[in-house]
Formats: sequence, structure tokens, C-alpha cells
Amino acid sequence: MPAIDLNSDVGESFGTWRLGDGEMLDIVSSVNIACGFHAGDPLTIRSTVVGAAARGLSVGAHIGYRDLAGFGRRFIDYAPDELAAEVVYQVGALEGLARLAGTSVRYVKPHGALYHAMAADRTQAKVVVDALAEYNPALPLLLLPGGVAFDYAREQGLRAVGEAFADRSYNPDGTLVSRREPGAVLHESSEVVDNMLRLAQEGVIIARDGSRLEMEAESICTHGDTPGAVAMARAVRGALESAGVQIRSFA
Amino acid sequence: MPAIDLNSDVGESFGTWRLGDGEMLDIVSSVNIACGFHAGDPLTIRSTVVGAAARGLSVGAHIGYRDLAGFGRRFIDYAPDELAAEVVYQVGALEGLARLAGTSVRYVKPHGALYHAMAADRTQAKVVVDALAEYNPALPLLLLPGGVAFDYAREQGLRAVGEAFADRSYNPDGTLVSRREPGAVLHESSEVVDNMLRLAQEGVIIARDGSRLEMEAESICTHGDTPGAVAMARAVRGALESAGVQIRSFA
Amino acid sequence: MPAIDLNSDVGESFGTWRLGDGEMLDIVSSVNIACGFHAGDPLTIRSTVVGAAARGLSVGAHIGYRDLAGFGRRFIDYAPDELAAEVVYQVGALEGLARLAGTSVRYVKPHGALYHAMAADRTQAKVVVDALAEYNPALPLLLLPGGVAFDYAREQGLRAVGEAFADRSYNPDGTLVSRREPGAVLHESSEVVDNMLRLAQEGVIIARDGSRLEMEAESICTHGDTPGAVAMARAVRGALESAGVQIRSFA
Amino acid sequence: MPAIDLNSDVGESFGTWRLGDGEMLDIVSSVNIACGFHAGDPLTIRSTVVGAAARGLSVGAHIGYRDLAGFGRRFIDYAPDELAAEVVYQVGALEGLARLAGTSVRYVKPHGALYHAMAADRTQAKVVVDALAEYNPALPLLLLPGGVAFDYAREQGLRAVGEAFADRSYNPDGTLVSRREPGAVLHESSEVVDNMLRLAQEGVIIARDGSRLEMEAESICTHGDTPGAVAMARAVRGALESAGVQIRSFA
Repeated sequence: MPAIDLNSDVGESFGTWRLGDGEMLDIVSSVNIACGFHAGDPLTIRSTVVGAAARGLSVGAHIGYRDLAGFGRRFIDYAPDELAAEVVYQVGALEGLARLAGTSVRYVKPHGALYHAMAADRTQAKVVVDALAEYNPALPLLLLPGGVAFDYAREQGLRAVGEAFADRSYNPDGTLVSRREPGAVLHESSEVVDNMLRLAQEGVIIARDGSRLEMEAESICTHGDTPGAVAMARAVRGALESAGVQIRSFA
Repeated sequence: MPAIDLNSDVGESFGTWRLGDGEMLDIVSSVNIACGFHAGDPLTIRSTVVGAAARGLSVGAHIGYRDLAGFGRRFIDYAPDELAAEVVYQVGALEGLARLAGTSVRYVKPHGALYHAMAADRTQAKVVVDALAEYNPALPLLLLPGGVAFDYAREQGLRAVGEAFADRSYNPDGTLVSRREPGAVLHESSEVVDNMLRLAQEGVIIARDGSRLEMEAESICTHGDTPGAVAMARAVRGALESAGVQIRSFA
Repeated sequence: MPAIDLNSDVGESFGTWRLGDGEMLDIVSSVNIACGFHAGDPLTIRSTVVGAAARGLSVGAHIGYRDLAGFGRRFIDYAPDELAAEVVYQVGALEGLARLAGTSVRYVKPHGALYHAMAADRTQAKVVVDALAEYNPALPLLLLPGGVAFDYAREQGLRAVGEAFADRSYNPDGTLVSRREPGAVLHESSEVVDNMLRLAQEGVIIARDGSRLEMEAESICTHGDTPGAVAMARAVRGALESAGVQIRSFA
Repeated sequence: MPAIDLNSDVGESFGTWRLGDGEMLDIVSSVNIACGFHAGDPLTIRSTVVGAAARGLSVGAHIGYRDLAGFGRRFIDYAPDELAAEVVYQVGALEGLARLAGTSVRYVKPHGALYHAMAADRTQAKVVVDALAEYNPALPLLLLPGGVAFDYAREQGLRAVGEAFADRSYNPDGTLVSRREPGAVLHESSEVVDNMLRLAQEGVIIARDGSRLEMEAESICTHGDTPGAVAMARAVRGALESAGVQIRSFA
């Protein structure tokens, strides 16, 4: 029976400011929990990890740049040793709160600008992968398949797990169509569902020029930041289950 | 052979701003490492914990209020569940960086205004003690002997370790003379050394009215924020060792 | 023709996190704009002040404690000189962005825990009032009538403007019923409307024991943080206008 | 009589962390005061601007990225409208505290990574220059002569003032030798003094290959972050005055 993971970003509130409402916990199998640097105050993190543990979800550390004002979406040109220390700090902080909830950090996924930097920039990719390998070489990393960090992590003997983005359009080379271009984000639920079924069953994504991309994705990234996004994630899960694909975390 | 611990606050730099220069690592047996909320960026924490591990020192989590601008010295009226989550977040973050250094967090000490709030205010004392008990009931807490948190921690079955302040004057009831009063801080090295020898050998502090205070202190808190303070800490250590008192961490 | 001001807190988003949606700009005559310390990133402030200027609203500096994580709702025990400098910093920052919008800061209102501290605590009241008087003695302060800061500001020759809270219940002594008590917040639109009409026409609030309170309020504080709150504010404005009360800023 | 300005970064402490000790106020004619985003808490800013006003120095707003942890030295890929709002926020905040001191902001200088981005990157240069022009077109900008922002500001009709770095080595094209290369920073006081005398008298810098660079510098940037740097700045001032060059702010 084929299986795939569904992951989503959660725990992204900060103090009085709410983002997402926890519905994704009932849809996905793995949750990328913000660790306080781009989002996620400790109390939000704690209640999120408690909710994840109660549902048996895999808890991932969603590490990011120290940039609440920019939500971790702006590239920051860190010194390598600073970045190494900051990502381990974040994983440890989440680990502490996970322990209270009777669970533990099962994987790490970089967020926002760090995610993209690690896919494209050898310096930051190497720094973060090396730091996490030193922290715990058994932790899988959830990354863009084929990106710099993905390949480097495997060279280092780590487990790199690839993911596909349910609602994004791909270029023929496997990179994401930039959000600045029209058609970058898919809004048609049926198109998204078809794409993800094909991915789960054939391991293939259709790029926007119609070409078939082999994609090594063990997980599908879904979003929950709008009611429409939550509905789309539900539709993807429903279609996968109806087609006999098991939803199961990679971790 | 009598023994006592020497502790000091370290890791209190932040980014480009330096505070202390690491000399205290060569003097004390336990280090209270800032965890990023009142001081201590992750890289500073990392290098500090590496230095502590290299010297075989006990690593303590110096938890504080989220207040870099106030260095954690201003009381903040936290909601209990926020404070509980924040202190565990901090301990976990330090634990992560300690793991990189091959050591682990051996105890917890509250910093600044949190230290004083926990000694006097049942709400914050209970919240923090309960959260740490839930996180790891084997972690000792380094506290003001006889304060609210000290007594409450023992009631909960935790190990509460008392400390004396080398350079501070005491009231007859065992509280510290307020820094706003003259004579609150002792500047005479010989007086400080005599006091600490008496404490280590007899378990007694002479209050400022001359009365003898039995004090349950397994550790002496020393400071390293000025060259004079470092010299005084060295003198205390030297005098204790010369008198046959072993310097050894409680943790 | 009688007149009264309606004020509301706006500009309380921070980066990606949204709070309120700008609807209150079409309802009130004065806007308390967050200045970046408890809420309000510079871009949010800028777009809010542009919106206020376009509608001819009075722009107020909503100064608060430096506490994004606590939204300025937690008391912080500032040193006086720190607090003085921080409030002027905030007013100046808003003034800079107001200048871009062709308007200027017309008044100052403290936010959250600072508001309450200034109503009850002479130290913080004096520090903030003195600092603002030094900055610009012509700036009115929007405050709890009869509070410590209200009286102190008048003693110093400043203009202290009192406000009533549309959706809050009052004790017979003119203080607000604590949010921890039942009935503290009024949810019945008709009750709120009746109360505010009475205030505008007779200068009287009915306390929760039925007694009549003379209240020196030139402004009514309304909220816009939920759809229900926005509707209630609209109802208050509509009822006042229907009764021939002009909605006009005090500033 | 020839004249030149001496400028220095000041007000760079943050809370308990001190950086520089105010000595530069007695040496330079213009002070670049940190505005709270990369350094400078409001109380530090206030006391610094008071000191500057007392000495009749020109007060400059040293605007930077929102990055206390990185001291504004790390490039951040801001959205243009965010950057525009943030720089005006900073100038306004300093203006507020300057008003308390009876002075006002006379010029603006970008700090650290923003300085370099504005010299090399048209996007950030344009955004910041346009925002400042909208805020107050009469404010001079202190910049790297010949950089992107320098030229763009002049095209917009603003006053761009060039500066030379006393202790830095130049490439033949007028750019600074990277700090990663040997010889980037000059430590010989006599060499620095000779260079700055030549600059003040002939408008020329000798690049590291010996070639003569015409440099349009109305100001010399000096540093005060170490005792050696302070001594060097004093030596430069002394030599200039002895040679009959007047030290006078450009603003």
C-alpha cells in the first residue's frame, strides 16, 4: 500500500497575534512547529506540541532566521558560526517543550528564507546541515528535493526527506515558479488534488510547461493560513485516502 | 573535608556587546549561563558552554524574563502559563547547545528580577518550580535560602540548593540589604573572604547588625563583571582552598 | 450642539500578523496608533497614519511598554529615566511617519499596562507626564478621568482629556470593574448605546450598583478587534448622531 | 582656511551593555547616533544627544537594519516599503529625543550593512533616499562618495556628503579594501594622519597600489570603539588643527 506524509507549518502565532487555528493538526501527519525566531512564542509552541502529541503526529523543528518583523522571509547574511548556534538553540528550545508534552523532535525543516537559502546557497546549507548533524545525526531533514542542502545532507550520511508543495507550480528544472510570476500559486482544488495523487502514485509532478518531473518526495507540504488553504489540504488528504494512499509521517 | 560550590553568571554577552571575559570559568565550579532572554546570544552560549565543559564545570540554566533592554532586572507581571513555557524554552535551548559541547544542563538558577520574584512572590515561584519539576524533577534549583521558591521546591520534592552572596550585606532576617541602602555591596576583599570562610566552615553569616545567621548555603555566588570583582572571586577561592575547603559543584 | 470624540486603538498589526482591519478608521474621530513597542511595525504605522490623514482623523501616539510578546499588557517595573526616554522615542517615531502622511501627532494615550499603571501609580504617571510635557506641553493626554496621571497632568498645566469605555462596567468609585469579575465587559449593544448616549448628553455613567457617576469624559473608547466590536462601535456612533451629538475629536 | 568634518558612530550601547564611552564627543564635529534598530536604547540615545547638544555637535541619525543580534552588520533583504518606513521611523525617534535636548537631526548616515547595500545596490539605495527625500529634502546624507546612493541622491536634488575612512585602505577604484584582506585596516597612527592631512589639503587619497584617488570627502569617519581608535582620532584632529585645517561639521 503506497504511503506519503502530509506536513504543514503550525505554531506560528506570537503573543496576542494569531495565525492559523490548529485545524491543520487534524489533517496532516507531520507538523513543522515554529521555534520562536521567526514566529511562535513559547506558550504557543507548548500548546501546539501538546496538540500534536495528542494526535500522534511527528513533531518537526521549523527553524528560521531571527526575524519576527519579517516572519523569517527575508534573507539575512549570517556569519556561519552564528547561524549554526541559532539553529541548534531553536531545536533545543522546542525539544524542551516537546518533553513536557511527552514527545520529542523527530525532524527539522528550515523555514522561509532559510529554506530557500539552503536550497541554493552552499554556505548556509553546509552550516546548518553540519550543525544539525553534530547535534543529532539521526534527525531527518525535510527539504526541497535536489537542492544544495538536500544533496549535501545525504553526502554527510544524514537522512534528507524531499517534499512537494501542493499548491505551487514547478519549473521544468524542478525549482518552484517564483511567487512574482503569474500562476505560481495554484488555487484550483481539483488541479492540486490531481497533482498530489500523481505524485503519491507515480512519483511525478507535471511542470508548468507540461513536462513530467520525477520528484523524490516523501512528503507533501500543505498550508493552513486561510480557510481556503485548509479546505484544499482536507481535499488532498481525502483524495489520497480514497485512492488507497496511506497518510503516514516519514519520521 | 568541608566543601562548597562557587557559582557565577556567565555567557551574558549579546552580539557585538561583551560582558565579562570568561575569566570566571577558571575560578568557579558552577556556571549560570544566560539563555537568551535577558542576555546571551546562541553563539555566546555555545562558546561559554564549550568552555565550561572543557573545565568540567557544572552547567546551569540562568533563566530570566524576556527583556534584553532591561537585562532581566525589571519585574514583569507575566501570566503564569506564559512564564512556565518561557522558562522551559530557555532550559531546552541551553540543553541543545550543551549537547553540542558534550555536556548537559545540571541545574537551574533564576536571574535578576525573576530570582527576586521567586524568593518573595508565591505565584511566580510556584509557576516556575512546577514547570521545571514537570520538565525534569531531578534538576536542582539554585535559590535564595529560605525564600518562597526554596521552600516550595522542597515541598514538591525537588532539590533546592541555597546560595550566599559573597559581596552582599545581609539583614538580620536573612534577606539581602537593598542596593539602595549604603553598605549593601561589600568592597573590602578581606571582609568578603572572612565572611565566606566562616560560611564554609560554620554555616554562618554575620548580618550587618552583628547577629549570626545560620545559612543553608551549598554555594557561594561570585561576580565577574569588573576586574575588581574577578580579583575578589579569586581571593575567595584561594582563601577557601588554603583553609582546606574543597571547591566542588553541588550538582 | 453637544459633541463628543470617539477613539479606538489601531495600527496594532506586526509584520505578517494582522490585528483589526482598518474599519475603525471609518467610525471614530481619533485614532490611537501603536508606536512599535507593544505593537505596530513601521509599515503598518505608516499605512495607518496615511489612512487617518485621508479621513481627517486626529492621530494619537499610543505609547506602550517594550513588550511585543506581551502586547504591552504586562506591568514592567521600569527605571524612571528609561521609561521617560522610551515614551518620547515612540512619539517621535510616529511623528516621523505622520510627517510623511502630511499630518502630525495631536495627542498621546498610554496603552495597556502603562495606561493602568499611570492611573494608579504615581511614579510611572509622573515620569511619563513630565517627559511628554518636556517634549511638547501642548499635546493633550487621553487618560482615565480621575486617575493619578489625569490629576497630575492638570497640576502641571497640561491638557488631560478623560475617556469612558463604551463596553466596560464601572464600579461606584469610577474605576473599571476588573476583567476577572463577571459582567466586566458589556456585550449588549443596546446597553452600551444607552450608556454612551447618557454620557454624551448628561455626563453621567450608571455604575453597576445603579449609582450615577459624574464622569468627565470628552471621548469614548471603542474597540475594533472583533466583528462584534466593530458593529457595536458603529451602533454607538449611529445613535449619537441620531440624537444630535456631533462626533468630533477633542484634539 | 580649509575645513573638514570629523564624524563618529556614537550611542551604540544597549541597556546594560556599553560600547564606547562618550570620549568621541570631545573629538569630532558630527555624531552618527544609533537609532535603536541596530544599537542604541532610548535612554542611551537621549544622553548621547544631550552630550552632543552641549558641545554644539551636529546630530546625525545613524539608521540601520532591525538587527540588534547582528549589530546591523548583516545584509537583510527587506521589502522596499518596509525599509522605507523603518528608516523614517528611526529618524523620527531620534528627532523626538533631540527635541528634548534642544537640538534636531541635521543629517542621516546609514549604518553597517545598510551603508554598504546603499553604496552597491540600487534597490535599497533608491528606497532609502526616496523615503528621506519625502521626509525632509533638506537633510544631507553622509555616504560613500561615488556609491550608488551618493549619485542617486544628487540626481534627486538632495545633498550627498562624501566621507573618507581614516583607518581604512582603499582600492584603486575608490572602494574600500575588504576587511577579509590583509592590510584593510590601518593601525599606524602616522600613516592615518598623513592620509587625512593629504585628503583635507589636496582632496586626495593614496590607494594601496600607490595611485592617487581624487575623493570628494567633506567628512572623515573616525572610530572610538577601542582606546587605540580614540587615540588615533585625537591624533588626526590634532594634526589637522596644527596644519590650519578647521574642524567643522558639514551640516
